[in-house]
Amino acid sequence: MSNSNSANAKVRLFVEHPLQALQTIPLTEAQSHYLFSVMRMGEGAPVLLFNGVDGEWLATVETAHKKRGALACVEQTRPLHLPPDLWLMFAPLKKARTDFIVEKAAEMGAARIVPVQTDFTNADRIRQDRLQAHALEAAEQCGGTFVPEVSELMRLDKLLEGWDASRRILFCDEDLVGQGRWLDQQGAGRDTGPWAILIGPEGGFSAAERKRLHALPFAHPVSLGPRILRADTAAVAALTLWQNALGDWT
Amino acid sequence: MSNSNSANAKVRLFVEHPLQALQTIPLTEAQSHYLFSVMRMGEGAPVLLFNGVDGEWLATVETAHKKRGALACVEQTRPLHLPPDLWLMFAPLKKARTDFIVEKAAEMGAARIVPVQTDFTNADRIRQDRLQAHALEAAEQCGGTFVPEVSELMRLDKLLEGWDASRRILFCDEDLVGQGRWLDQQGAGRDTGPWAILIGPEGGFSAAERKRLHALPFAHPVSLGPRILRADTAAVAALTLWQNALGDWT
Repeated sequence: MSNSNSANAKVRLFVEHPLQALQTIPLTEAQSHYLFSVMRMGEGAPVLLFNGVDGEWLATVETAHKKRGALACVEQTRPLHLPPDLWLMFAPLKKARTDFIVEKAAEMGAARIVPVQTDFTNADRIRQDRLQAHALEAAEQCGGTFVPEVSELMRLDKLLEGWDASRRILFCDEDLVGQGRWLDQQGAGRDTGPWAILIGPEGGFSAAERKRLHALPFAHPVSLGPRILRADTAAVAALTLWQNALGDWT
Repeated sequence: MSNSNSANAKVRLFVEHPLQALQTIPLTEAQSHYLFSVMRMGEGAPVLLFNGVDGEWLATVETAHKKRGALACVEQTRPLHLPPDLWLMFAPLKKARTDFIVEKAAEMGAARIVPVQTDFTNADRIRQDRLQAHALEAAEQCGGTFVPEVSELMRLDKLLEGWDASRRILFCDEDLVGQGRWLDQQGAGRDTGPWAILIGPEGGFSAAERKRLHALPFAHPVSLGPRILRADTAAVAALTLWQNALGDWT
């Protein structure tokens, strides 16, 4: 199958099925509806697939049934690319911005997305299934071969109690606005081991939280410039700095 | 007036009026409605003001009239902070994401926001007034003392014809995904003169545009990691890299 066929594929789908040559991939009803009713694909049309394990594969439409379609797996087009061991922890905001943070975390290559409840977080629950679906859709769009897991909402204090100290935390401290810079120069800035980025809520961290974070030997405050960033902007900015210094952008 | 009064201010407003001690600041009808009907502020309540020239000032409510209110300017709370001479040029997307890019550009400290029409841009017009209002609102929210100007939509080819070669262009080339890195190591990566970041549309630049950009001696391609970023994510990521290396985050 030619590369042009792979490049012509207009759809990328995540499937929960092994991907290997000659494999038939059954589609869910939602996927069948999308491919054959919305996109009006016919038999033989190319589709790109990934399952989080086997990389990206080119497949072609085998059965264009609007409820129970199937694809035929042709050949691997990209190997599996796992993101670095980086978590994005954030305090949920209003719905649209929470969705946005999850989408951006997946695009930017976070391995795990952890919504946390802080002292100033208004949300006391999240729709984990909806956020997970957002992460999946973002992975489909951005050409990733991996879908980050979205955790259930956890309380920040509980999370820190059981924290594995080998995972460093990069936290964005609004009180550092305009001071200091990203930690290139520090020893931690060369540690490519596990990390977690922690973004506070719109109101920032509470005094107690800030005190606790600053006292943790594995937690590193970072300033994101002289303006106050919204939490969603801060998430993308912190992921950028981290990926560029320590992650898979290098 | 105490600092606590300044910290207690729940509202920041952009006003088109000189700011100096003892000055009375007339409010527009929209601002009066917001402060006195929506926020229900009373006389003496603190408000922070900026006008893009005089820094940030603490003011208090002098006349709580729901249509024609006025504030009394008290004291400067922050000096004027102009962003670096950085433009963000981007191809307009669907409405929500275009709004988002303008908001992010203002938060991230772009001095000017330039919507450009590329070969693969669907939009053939923008609502400049609406985008300018978004930039203003973002500046109010992020604590900035400056509002970037949003230009009218311009064709990329026309813009490049008249380009001042002393302004370097950083353009995000999707074909470099997974290759190379930000230009720390290059000479241009230390040039703190004028710059413009150029983000292409969702479909990327056309072959002709890419060829032209690569041939410009003042244009520098950058890779934003191994995943394909949406244009709005790419804008925040590119602004982050630039601000961190050359801008006012250092």
